[in-house]
Amino acid sequence: MLYTNAILITMDQEKNIFSDGAMLVKNGKIADLGGAADMKEMYPDESCQDMCGDIIMPGMINTHTHAPMVLFRGLADDLPLKAWLEKYIWPMEKKMVNADFVKWGVRLAMMEMIASGTTCFSDMYFFEDAAAEAVNGAGMRALLGEGVIDFPTPDAATPEEEMRRLSDLAAKWKGNDNVRISVCAHSPYTCSPDLLLKTKKLADKLKTVHHIHVAETKGERDSIAASLSGESPVKFLQRLDILDASTLAAHCVWTDAEDINILAECGVNVAHNPSSNLKLASGTAPVADMLKNGVNVSLGTDGAASNNNLDMFREMRMAALIHKGASLDPEACGAYDVLEMATINGARALSMDDITGSLEIGKYADFIVVDTTSPNMTPMYDPVSHLVYSANGADVRKVYVSGRLVYRNGEYLTMDAGEVYENIRRLSGGIYGALNG
Amino acid sequence: MLYTNAILITMDQEKNIFSDGAMLVKNGKIADLGGAADMKEMYPDESCQDMCGDIIMPGMINTHTHAPMVLFRGLADDLPLKAWLEKYIWPMEKKMVNADFVKWGVRLAMMEMIASGTTCFSDMYFFEDAAAEAVNGAGMRALLGEGVIDFPTPDAATPEEEMRRLSDLAAKWKGNDNVRISVCAHSPYTCSPDLLLKTKKLADKLKTVHHIHVAETKGERDSIAASLSGESPVKFLQRLDILDASTLAAHCVWTDAEDINILAECGVNVAHNPSSNLKLASGTAPVADMLKNGVNVSLGTDGAASNNNLDMFREMRMAALIHKGASLDPEACGAYDVLEMATINGARALSMDDITGSLEIGKYADFIVVDTTSPNMTPMYDPVSHLVYSANGADVRKVYVSGRLVYRNGEYLTMDAGEVYENIRRLSGGIYGALNG
Repeated sequence: MLYTNAILITMDQEKNIFSDGAMLVKNGKIADLGGAADMKEMYPDESCQDMCGDIIMPGMINTHTHAPMVLFRGLADDLPLKAWLEKYIWPMEKKMVNADFVKWGVRLAMMEMIASGTTCFSDMYFFEDAAAEAVNGAGMRALLGEGVIDFPTPDAATPEEEMRRLSDLAAKWKGNDNVRISVCAHSPYTCSPDLLLKTKKLADKLKTVHHIHVAETKGERDSIAASLSGESPVKFLQRLDILDASTLAAHCVWTDAEDINILAECGVNVAHNPSSNLKLASGTAPVADMLKNGVNVSLGTDGAASNNNLDMFREMRMAALIHKGASLDPEACGAYDVLEMATINGARALSMDDITGSLEIGKYADFIVVDTTSPNMTPMYDPVSHLVYSANGADVRKVYVSGRLVYRNGEYLTMDAGEVYENIRRLSGGIYGALNG
Repeated sequence: MLYTNAILITMDQEKNIFSDGAMLVKNGKIADLGGAADMKEMYPDESCQDMCGDIIMPGMINTHTHAPMVLFRGLADDLPLKAWLEKYIWPMEKKMVNADFVKWGVRLAMMEMIASGTTCFSDMYFFEDAAAEAVNGAGMRALLGEGVIDFPTPDAATPEEEMRRLSDLAAKWKGNDNVRISVCAHSPYTCSPDLLLKTKKLADKLKTVHHIHVAETKGERDSIAASLSGESPVKFLQRLDILDASTLAAHCVWTDAEDINILAECGVNVAHNPSSNLKLASGTAPVADMLKNGVNVSLGTDGAASNNNLDMFREMRMAALIHKGASLDPEACGAYDVLEMATINGARALSMDDITGSLEIGKYADFIVVDTTSPNMTPMYDPVSHLVYSANGADVRKVYVSGRLVYRNGEYLTMDAGEVYENIRRLSGGIYGALNG
């Protein structure tokens, strides 16, 4: 299939944008792309699909979320991270989270993500076997991991059990490009140094990403500094020798110049979650400085319980705006930088840049079609500016993963939305009951 | 017409929310409202419209914008205010802005505002006679003013001429509740003290709002301080004795504790524009402190050239998030506070709280219907939280102004969208040409 008459934003290394472009997709992968006239001449016999001047861009990659937590959306707002976790989230998780919760929560999360242009996400939660089946069934793409932590979780009595679950999961999904498995250590303040070394060792053995929350709050930074003669969370992890290019460090809000140097030197990938960090009053990560120092910064929504949505368009706009305001530098985090964060940088962070994250020959055809005719996209002098500052998730018309159409104008083609809503009603009724009595 | 089966968020003084509510509309005004069962019993003969469990809330009020600037959307990004104004906006305005530009620009802006749930806006631009015809024709509501400034503008050679235009406009639209006229002084740094006194006098004579940009940038604050022995913009305006309850002060970013006291004591209404202030790297207004001190803070998008959209849902979310991050206080600017900023506080700021801004008996039926079934609104434990943190403009299903349906699921019932787009294409083609040659 040749997709023609599109503004093609490739996000490749040359930053190619074809204002009148076309893309050839064969067997789920990108076979060729370029100017529409050239492409039509080269492939006269391919059947064409007219994109009516809309934008084709890579599907976005949400590098840090807890997808099933959509079931806790709006449950408890306007609280600090510690109280929010200890008074609401952890007790509710203990009571409510099981494989059924994850099975339906992930499906609702995927509906929201797909509808707003995300084709791939990195998850940290529990019962990820249920998530893996859901992702594979919907034809979406994800890196899934379970949070290893020094106390019992909903799906494991001990960290050792959690790590066995992860090993089994990795074995089960080996060779599948829709579902990959990561190893998640919850954080340096909830995992002992010994446990952190073990999770990193497991990630290395499985040749996968080591996903961890780092320096999210001032409280975390201060408590680690107090117990480790002033060391920062990043410095502490470096001393353990577990930071490298397969590290995905979520948040990194409380990082100083020395920490940023460490992140850059070790090749650590940062998942920046601007909305969640603001909502929980954690602060604003020094992303402009990270980018200046060559850190690979990607974007995440965090869970819907602290965002309270999974829309990467809103996250892009937030990232493009808050760092300008924080630094009083209107050139900080320009529109193109942020579009990279949401696409190719995300693929790099998940060690998936060989298969997705940009429109390049040989990669999977993971792409979205963005409406250019809505009032908020009109007129259009610069499509990149519009994607970051003007578009919203609802401007996404179509979503393709591995060349397969999974969403079209409000319709989900690989999931039964009615069945999902019915089960979400059932589960949220239980949560509401537990909350109020 | 009795609108039933709705979550009714009234934004009245008692903060009434009816989880199963109904509202009776007669002759364009709210005749009664309350619980659905009571209302059906009281009005058994009224024809009913089932809102299917969706949310009914007051139409939002955008208290500071430059509507026709949608035609400059995305034209020049990532620049500081001074360079942005002096190198791009002012030269382009000199070249391109005329009554035709305003006529179609305002229509496109209204399409975007209505589609995202705004029923009333406060504008500061030029050729507002063309804007007034457009607003009245579309059945929307607006407070329109032309910017008076100490140099020639696109529609007036002198400030005196601009003020004559405003007097004529006010006379023409007197008694009309869809179009009201304000007097706009551009700012304390572009208007002489003498001119500021004159515009305030005119506003008082016309018994209308005095709309002015105040303390938007550090540069403005510093230059006023340098020429007036340290005085802040707010203090300077207070010394001129032109601050009172009919003042609408846009931005107020660079205000300190003393300034906030002055704003509170004088009853000044603030139009907070969080996105624009971030995008132009102007900073973050101390809104949490303003609210604590009783200042009436409303919300604006500013023009689409510095936002780059007119969606008040995005502005609400931004306001609710950035002040938590800036103050590291997760309780700053709670969801209900922000919903007030976008509705009743806005009506108060435009001296229109007797006719709109909340759902109360006797006010015009200016209301919107928000979808509660989209994935990002599911599940729903707290509708107020969802409106601020989870909803986006595209969740708006229907919009009513004075009881008249003006928008329904993407369809504009009082404007010819095709004609608007055709004229926007023509005008933006000219702008693109002027920009590139």
